Amino acid sequence: MALIDEARRRIPSEVRRVARRESLDPEQVRRRLVSGRVVIPCNPVHAPGPIGIGEGLGVKVNVNIGSSRDRCSLREELLKARAAVKLGTDAIMDLSTGGDTRAIRRALLKAVSVPLGTVPIYETALETLKTRSARVIDMSEDAIFATIERQAREGVDFMTVHCGITRESVARLKKSGRIADIVSRGGAFLSAWILHNEKENPLYSDYDYLLELARKHEFALSLGDGLRPGCIADATDRAQLQELIILGELVDRARKSRVQAMVEGPGHVPLDQIEANIRAQKTVCKGAPFYVLGPLVTDIAPGYDHITSAIGGALAAWFGADFLCYVTPSEHLSLPTVEDVRQGTVASRIAAHAADLARGIGWERDIAMARARKALDWEGQFRQAIDPEHAREVRSRHKPRKSERTCTMCGDLCAMAIDDEFV
Amino acid sequence: MALIDEARRRIPSEVRRVARRESLDPEQVRRRLVSGRVVIPCNPVHAPGPIGIGEGLGVKVNVNIGSSRDRCSLREELLKARAAVKLGTDAIMDLSTGGDTRAIRRALLKAVSVPLGTVPIYETALETLKTRSARVIDMSEDAIFATIERQAREGVDFMTVHCGITRESVARLKKSGRIADIVSRGGAFLSAWILHNEKENPLYSDYDYLLELARKHEFALSLGDGLRPGCIADATDRAQLQELIILGELVDRARKSRVQAMVEGPGHVPLDQIEANIRAQKTVCKGAPFYVLGPLVTDIAPGYDHITSAIGGALAAWFGADFLCYVTPSEHLSLPTVEDVRQGTVASRIAAHAADLARGIGWERDIAMARARKALDWEGQFRQAIDPEHAREVRSRHKPRKSERTCTMCGDLCAMAIDDEFV
Repeated sequence: MALIDEARRRIPSEVRRVARRESLDPEQVRRRLVSGRVVIPCNPVHAPGPIGIGEGLGVKVNVNIGSSRDRCSLREELLKARAAVKLGTDAIMDLSTGGDTRAIRRALLKAVSVPLGTVPIYETALETLKTRSARVIDMSEDAIFATIERQAREGVDFMTVHCGITRESVARLKKSGRIADIVSRGGAFLSAWILHNEKENPLYSDYDYLLELARKHEFALSLGDGLRPGCIADATDRAQLQELIILGELVDRARKSRVQAMVEGPGHVPLDQIEANIRAQKTVCKGAPFYVLGPLVTDIAPGYDHITSAIGGALAAWFGADFLCYVTPSEHLSLPTVEDVRQGTVASRIAAHAADLARGIGWERDIAMARARKALDWEGQFRQAIDPEHAREVRSRHKPRKSERTCTMCGDLCAMAIDDEFV
Repeated sequence: MALIDEARRRIPSEVRRVARRESLDPEQVRRRLVSGRVVIPCNPVHAPGPIGIGEGLGVKVNVNIGSSRDRCSLREELLKARAAVKLGTDAIMDLSTGGDTRAIRRALLKAVSVPLGTVPIYETALETLKTRSARVIDMSEDAIFATIERQAREGVDFMTVHCGITRESVARLKKSGRIADIVSRGGAFLSAWILHNEKENPLYSDYDYLLELARKHEFALSLGDGLRPGCIADATDRAQLQELIILGELVDRARKSRVQAMVEGPGHVPLDQIEANIRAQKTVCKGAPFYVLGPLVTDIAPGYDHITSAIGGALAAWFGADFLCYVTPSEHLSLPTVEDVRQGTVASRIAAHAADLARGIGWERDIAMARARKALDWEGQFRQAIDPEHAREVRSRHKPRKSERTCTMCGDLCAMAIDDEFV
């Protein structure tokens, strides 16, 4: 029985586990799941440790990994997944577009105990391109749904589906005068497909069939934002809002079919427009969990976009975004390395935790850290750190000579040590 | 003639240069300087390129460097200063506490064309400690002022002076029940001095003499926040606000004496208390420029505090903070390396720029970047990047094979390239 169906009658074990982890009343989590304000992506074939995403829960983090057409190594992708899980990611998306993507996905599903997501249109495109002289616009409607069903059978827990790319939203895009047009890959594939074939997006026109597959195979929908802004000057424009309105309607239909659905959001957004983006999504999509990529608060920091998106992500999550997709230092420049994945995961975890704190969640750990600092208890500090290994390594770079208890920044002039003696 | 005195009669050349850089009316900048809402730290002995800090101006960034008791290399400090200036810092503070601090300061004053700040109480403490069995509490009042005057004569443009650490504020601290007590070094020195000697802080009791020195030698005061919170649980507490009230009174007195003064602020502050901190400072200190350290929005990310403080700094600056003191990845763990200085400078520049954008400043550069991205013009992208060398290096890590115009993330599946062809 699908999770929502079960939850309508009793409290499923997944809900209990989520509630325990969040120190919440299971009945409250159950009600939010049934109403669509919380999702628990959990394909029974994969059966990951269940995590809850949505209203009243701690902010969750997703890490994108995956091979590309230029770089492809199963081993490296497994290393990325393990590094991200070790640093506390709540979910992983496999965006592989290079090499044997099926083998990579199966290996990841086996290796990873957190929910795994995909963007199935990538594999449809890749398999289409294998045919001589075929292009993205030659994807068949059947192939699109066949990929989704295949990945669902394999155990994928949630899938990004760009159902809001429609003839209507693409027409609005064309009139909107954007600088960067479409920067979502899935969005670009489907817009090109619609315009070239002069047909409606199958993920929209056959949305009922998609819902049927989602119900049958118990994966959650992540309604993709194919028209998300690709630069801050395009943020919150008519094209983006048109797609959001369509996604809101699709959330209603998913709820009627008892399919779990969350909604994806931007992207590149200046600081002062983040709150408006969250409020609009939460209203238009009737409280559906909001999954944001970044948002990046400036465009001029390539090489450091884990930081631009940690700023935007912290703010977005504080205002109500539920799920942060990390961004790595390599964004806009190259496929991330394992080290990039580490940097990105930590940055996103910081953003999520900062927002949790602002909403009154998770203070025990910061207080324990403060007490350990005050006591100059270094092991205690490492225990509370998001990345204990790295913290230990930075401290041990140079050994304090004057006073073992302190660090090389202040040595015996340490404020904590002086407080201890005199204050 | 002191800058403010000159500005009361005419528009000084420094004001003109600041106004040109900010695309503002010089008369407006002049008025704000005279009223104390803008400072232009500019000791004529050093004569740095003038920068304006305060109301209506772009957000500025400061980089702390300096040797420690455990690590001391003039060469390395010069490398740090040059790296920070290259990455666009607006000011540098030399916080040296190791080796020949006078030689380091003189070398930095010679090498650096941005305003240079110091915390003179450090050198007073260091020189006191040279006497056998002397402790910080043995600093003499004369030595405190002698250090300030010496550094002013050498050309230091602004000095942190912890005048708000008083018998009253320290008494309030003792009653406040803090976890981390005092984490400011200068704050700890002076609190210890007050408590041990049972006397008032000379920087407070002889504040008029300090103002006289500042007027005579034309350095700006940066009224230090010795009681800033050292963990988020201590943020915005009674001790912090008590010191702020005293600093507000000292701003009034500085203005009456026509001395330029800004006010320093926290520290460790959760996201939801940042706005309150800025509004309180701007009200209590009657619009004096606000210089914040961080703020760090969580305590649990040692090794990544450039990120925790970029989040807090962006928000603080958006709400009205004028000057961001960077924080490096080594904060709380060890003395920063040259690479740490680089990372910290970029993170703080991102925060400042994100806030500028939210206030309508600096959009041209982001738009130029977006256009270059859209055109897959890589050289154009590097030109707009905060750190062009690093961006270039990340892109060139792996060469795209499928399509030279794209990068190894998407290769020929690049959304921009597909838009070009079909959308």
